[in-house]
Amino acid sequence: MRIVVALGGNALLERGQKPDARLQIDNVNTAVDALAPLAAEHEFVVTHGNGPQVGVIALQSANDPKLSEPYPFDTLGAMTQGMIGYWLQHAFGNALPDNRVVCTVNQTLVDKDDPAFANPTKFVGEVYTEEQAKEFEAERGWVMKPDGPHFRRVVGSPDPQSIVESDVVKDLVNSGVTVICSGGGGIPVYRDSDGKLRGAEAVIDKDLSGAILSEEVGADMFVILTDVPAVMEDFGTPDQREINRSTPEEMRAKGFAAGSMGPKVEAACRFVEKTGKAAAIGRLADAPKIIAGEAGTIITRDGKFPA
Amino acid sequence: MRIVVALGGNALLERGQKPDARLQIDNVNTAVDALAPLAAEHEFVVTHGNGPQVGVIALQSANDPKLSEPYPFDTLGAMTQGMIGYWLQHAFGNALPDNRVVCTVNQTLVDKDDPAFANPTKFVGEVYTEEQAKEFEAERGWVMKPDGPHFRRVVGSPDPQSIVESDVVKDLVNSGVTVICSGGGGIPVYRDSDGKLRGAEAVIDKDLSGAILSEEVGADMFVILTDVPAVMEDFGTPDQREINRSTPEEMRAKGFAAGSMGPKVEAACRFVEKTGKAAAIGRLADAPKIIAGEAGTIITRDGKFPA
Repeated sequence: MRIVVALGGNALLERGQKPDARLQIDNVNTAVDALAPLAAEHEFVVTHGNGPQVGVIALQSANDPKLSEPYPFDTLGAMTQGMIGYWLQHAFGNALPDNRVVCTVNQTLVDKDDPAFANPTKFVGEVYTEEQAKEFEAERGWVMKPDGPHFRRVVGSPDPQSIVESDVVKDLVNSGVTVICSGGGGIPVYRDSDGKLRGAEAVIDKDLSGAILSEEVGADMFVILTDVPAVMEDFGTPDQREINRSTPEEMRAKGFAAGSMGPKVEAACRFVEKTGKAAAIGRLADAPKIIAGEAGTIITRDGKFPA
Repeated sequence: MRIVVALGGNALLERGQKPDARLQIDNVNTAVDALAPLAAEHEFVVTHGNGPQVGVIALQSANDPKLSEPYPFDTLGAMTQGMIGYWLQHAFGNALPDNRVVCTVNQTLVDKDDPAFANPTKFVGEVYTEEQAKEFEAERGWVMKPDGPHFRRVVGSPDPQSIVESDVVKDLVNSGVTVICSGGGGIPVYRDSDGKLRGAEAVIDKDLSGAILSEEVGADMFVILTDVPAVMEDFGTPDQREINRSTPEEMRAKGFAAGSMGPKVEAACRFVEKTGKAAAIGRLADAPKIIAGEAGTIITRDGKFPA
């Protein structure tokens, strides 16, 4: 089976943890312990989030007195692809000495006219005073919005259209390589009016991007790994229960858009609708059980799994 | 022809330049303008240095109050592979829209018992007072040495043995992909007594590592690009003249080891001795002329080029 798993950035840097490399590498090793048996048995692609990590280096960059301006988000995203990609590549290599493992740097194409650019909503980086915020708006062209008593920069989260290098990734998978790629949803780029790609100051949702990656590399299953055992129905009520099998129609009808599950459910539904293959949402530690159909929420066109 | 070029980190961030992303991206675009015609015509692999870039983010990391300890040099090296790799991948993609271009993250294997670990000599990161230096030696196990009136950390620069993922890189080149890889000499790793790879606090010479990469991917020519037109004989004297053709024996007999040309000449000689193919040292802007045998210092077993 060809499997793409999407690993949350929070699985590698838990809320409240110090962003030390050592702790993150420990978390990576724990994740790889759970995933290595699957990578040994299946054609395997790993993508990952980078929210907490890009936040750390965005602050470092913003506070660096030697820079005229902080590094843009495409460059920062690329740095996290190298960093987290190395940790994963290194850990998978140690866990599976007979596998060939490589991480590739990837760009994700977004639409220059995506409404997310005109109406950015994702808070990124440090908090500032109103006065500083006005300065940054004037000098750097940033969009600043109030976040509680402070001001923070907001960037757009445009819809991913395609992974620029997915044919290379697909060739690697075809030749038996375990690939880590498209970290942080991929480095956001748009096609400019002169036909060239340009880096975008944006943040891409790694699950929506993972759905595109899964489609483009021909995955049989797209697995979104998080810290809950499954998508819950009537979440937070006494009737709360796991959804174990469903279809895109059913999932969309339930309306998860508002919660943190929204983008995950949307990404899973898109992959199933486009390809007719299976998508799943569940807990990292349950990954082997999810693939076997014994845990997590599994979405297919007919609500059955295995077929 | 299959060509590996090694690009200096200083070509991407010139001495005295602010380390802004914008300036570095401009430098990358200039380098890619010079190299794109070669990448269009030949099987092409680019490796690059990261000295100035890793210095910038090592300082950012050392000054980050949220970290218990700065990021180690393997992690920092991986970050620069993502960053510089993205800039190059992006620029080559724009210059050659019909090429497939990808950057891979790469580890370089060094010997755990390399004498460079016992006697580190490469200064890295910030300057400290003697008191701070003693603290870091005690708390972090760093080796600190005087650098003028200050103290700085030193790390070893062990001899590269092999590129862990070079067979994957070779497959990519075989299938026609332009590959950027092994940036900063590769992320240093050693094989521990339990058989696992471990990240090393070290800095690898990108030219010595490029020679190994060139050998392992089966390059016909290994080209070290720098800011001088050729290796000079009697450098700095009125008799100074370019060496245009030479052999490893001749070059070693001249004894360039002490100067900044030393590692470049050594890397070029090693590649020629191992493979019987050609190595060259010359100016970035002259790259097409060097390949044609019309510029630079070209080293072959018999001192002739083309054969």
